Amino acid sequence: MTVELVCVGTELLLGNIVNTNAAFLAEKCADLGLSCYYQTVVGDNEERLSETLKTALKRSDVVILSGGLGPTKDDLTKEVAAKVMGKKLHMHEPSRKRIEDFFKKRNLEATENNWKQAMMPKGAIVVDNENGTAPGVIMEEEGKKVILLPGPPNELIPMFEKGIMPYLSKKNATIYSQTVKICGVGESKAETMVKDLIDKQTNPTIAPYAKNCEVHFRVTAKAADEKEAKKLLKPVVKELKSRFENHVYTTEADTTLEKAVVDLLTANKLTVSTAESCTGGMLAGRLMNVPGVSQVYKSGYITYSNKAKRKILNVKKGSLEKKGAVSEEVAREMAKGAAMASKAEVAVAVTGIAGPDGGTEEKPVGLVYIACSVCGKIKVKKYHFSGNRAKIRETSVSSALILMRQCILEYYSEVTFGKKL
Amino acid sequence: MTVELVCVGTELLLGNIVNTNAAFLAEKCADLGLSCYYQTVVGDNEERLSETLKTALKRSDVVILSGGLGPTKDDLTKEVAAKVMGKKLHMHEPSRKRIEDFFKKRNLEATENNWKQAMMPKGAIVVDNENGTAPGVIMEEEGKKVILLPGPPNELIPMFEKGIMPYLSKKNATIYSQTVKICGVGESKAETMVKDLIDKQTNPTIAPYAKNCEVHFRVTAKAADEKEAKKLLKPVVKELKSRFENHVYTTEADTTLEKAVVDLLTANKLTVSTAESCTGGMLAGRLMNVPGVSQVYKSGYITYSNKAKRKILNVKKGSLEKKGAVSEEVAREMAKGAAMASKAEVAVAVTGIAGPDGGTEEKPVGLVYIACSVCGKIKVKKYHFSGNRAKIRETSVSSALILMRQCILEYYSEVTFGKKL
Repeated sequence: MTVELVCVGTELLLGNIVNTNAAFLAEKCADLGLSCYYQTVVGDNEERLSETLKTALKRSDVVILSGGLGPTKDDLTKEVAAKVMGKKLHMHEPSRKRIEDFFKKRNLEATENNWKQAMMPKGAIVVDNENGTAPGVIMEEEGKKVILLPGPPNELIPMFEKGIMPYLSKKNATIYSQTVKICGVGESKAETMVKDLIDKQTNPTIAPYAKNCEVHFRVTAKAADEKEAKKLLKPVVKELKSRFENHVYTTEADTTLEKAVVDLLTANKLTVSTAESCTGGMLAGRLMNVPGVSQVYKSGYITYSNKAKRKILNVKKGSLEKKGAVSEEVAREMAKGAAMASKAEVAVAVTGIAGPDGGTEEKPVGLVYIACSVCGKIKVKKYHFSGNRAKIRETSVSSALILMRQCILEYYSEVTFGKKL
Repeated sequence: MTVELVCVGTELLLGNIVNTNAAFLAEKCADLGLSCYYQTVVGDNEERLSETLKTALKRSDVVILSGGLGPTKDDLTKEVAAKVMGKKLHMHEPSRKRIEDFFKKRNLEATENNWKQAMMPKGAIVVDNENGTAPGVIMEEEGKKVILLPGPPNELIPMFEKGIMPYLSKKNATIYSQTVKICGVGESKAETMVKDLIDKQTNPTIAPYAKNCEVHFRVTAKAADEKEAKKLLKPVVKELKSRFENHVYTTEADTTLEKAVVDLLTANKLTVSTAESCTGGMLAGRLMNVPGVSQVYKSGYITYSNKAKRKILNVKKGSLEKKGAVSEEVAREMAKGAAMASKAEVAVAVTGIAGPDGGTEEKPVGLVYIACSVCGKIKVKKYHFSGNRAKIRETSVSSALILMRQCILEYYSEVTFGKKL
């Protein structure tokens, strides 16, 4: 089954907002095993929207439109889609009631405009919106399906997950996918290591993709039922795990690298502290993404200046003078100092040159040292990152998480990394 | 002149990456006064790409394609575009030389594939790529223009700004725009305050857009030359400034809110320190986005636990026990403690409940206190933010920057905020 996305909104055409809805919908459709060959963005314009929808219906089985379901005159996605599908609009009583309740609950009064949102195409499936007033709509006609979703992500995402995905997966063959997430192995290296598997893939398929110091392999199986699909996935996931060993940090869709690190800390009853120079709080900020991190996170120090490094982290004046703030010694002393000051078992320190200024021939922009101390055992690594200031800082944060994970694993299980790599 | 964007890449169709290139290009094209009615995403597929480009050329004057200029066989944007435009490819000697140098500099060897990137359509304008091996391409034919850009944002952005924008602005009528950036005023309030201006706008036009605690008004004038355009803009920008007074933090395109705050600190010879609980380093991280922040940033403390708040920031045990970690008192003591520990003139502290857990009826998720101390004068504000954990933290960081700005301005010039609001 093929799917096509049409995102409606002038703010997208003007570049005022980034089209995160398209990425969300595309990823979910891929998970469902739907093939997507086109995404289009159009404005709230009857003629262009109608033309775009007609073109999409010619070449795809399912067309998902997002945006333009609001109460104002500008919003015309539903009206145009109904017209293209040859369906008349009528007042949908349950939707009218929901909108009425929505406003009552908030002590607000609905305006005349709002009732427009309760007008539904005849014979359509109406999908409840738990976070707003615009219901979703599914229309079917001659094997083609048109799905209308509200534009705000906080309405679109839950509606798609709860109301649309079950519908689509029922319409499609059973698809089940699992992602094997790998860190600390470069993209091309990782792909080379599984080239033979990818080359001979049929069912399941293996799709690699790289993101910020990580490589994710999505393994997708098609089968008659979920049990069968899972059976097909199992040996492939197992093979990937065996090839990448400890570089696999999870096979759970919802587990991020920072969550894997926090889970590892929790499992080993460890607390953690951060000392940051060039990343200036971003590493701590990323750990804090994980709900419940308060159980393991002790405290963090942002020591941008030499003075702060000395005063807060007890970095030696001699090291700063002789080796410079961006050096193996200073990274080591920062980690040590953070561990001492916080009394956390794990301490990680980052010092580097994020640019655009401050680089020299000997110490160019992108040079970063990361140190990790686990119960007094300290490891320091030197990195040369490329890209602009933002990219260097982002890569530093990911690399620090990877180093933390590695150091904890090595300390607790005497794992050796990269045996096969 | 109309423009249309075609972003090429399977990773976009799979939702593996978010299409930030489209938002960047759309915004820049709007700045240039080009009208954009369509954006399309297609994969690296000859037939579909060719079809998409032909459709785009029928309805738009300029088509900008991004992605698919890499060295592998999959990358076929240039080959397809040249074919559609009826142009043959030939080896472009300066590009070949640049690619050779690119690899030499990095002590790497170019592979056979890389020379494919130096093949250029006959008669095309070749645009240098300072950050990668794929040059940009401009083709003209019968009044239509096709522009090819590399996919990676760190290559696309500088190439577009340096190589393409001057080209496009020469081809278009003179368009000049300026953005008035406002903080600390809600979106609907801000729009209401200038409704009369927007309603009667013709030239210049005023386009408002809201982003994360800020409202930006883009004022765009069309004229015969730049001088004339600037003359048209001036009174409108002046009027906006007078209506929003000190809430206007800049009219410079490149100045972010964090840069405005850092500039304000620098101008007043102030240093700053941060103490963060629920934002856990994100506020410091955002200040660190600004190159040269090292001149003003003293040190930062991430005190997630009560213990850390007491030990590092000297928050009173009594305050924590009686009022709780998320309270006006604790925010105030955190700011005071950070100022003492760092000896910075300005200290800002954030404590709140980011969720998803930890909320109570009395202190729900989204309750945040932010305190700012300027030379000992402390102001504390209470906020109720909505959204998920990430959104609450992001809004807290922006609100802290706005409060810092306000406190510094009030301290130094006895400005009163919101006089008219």
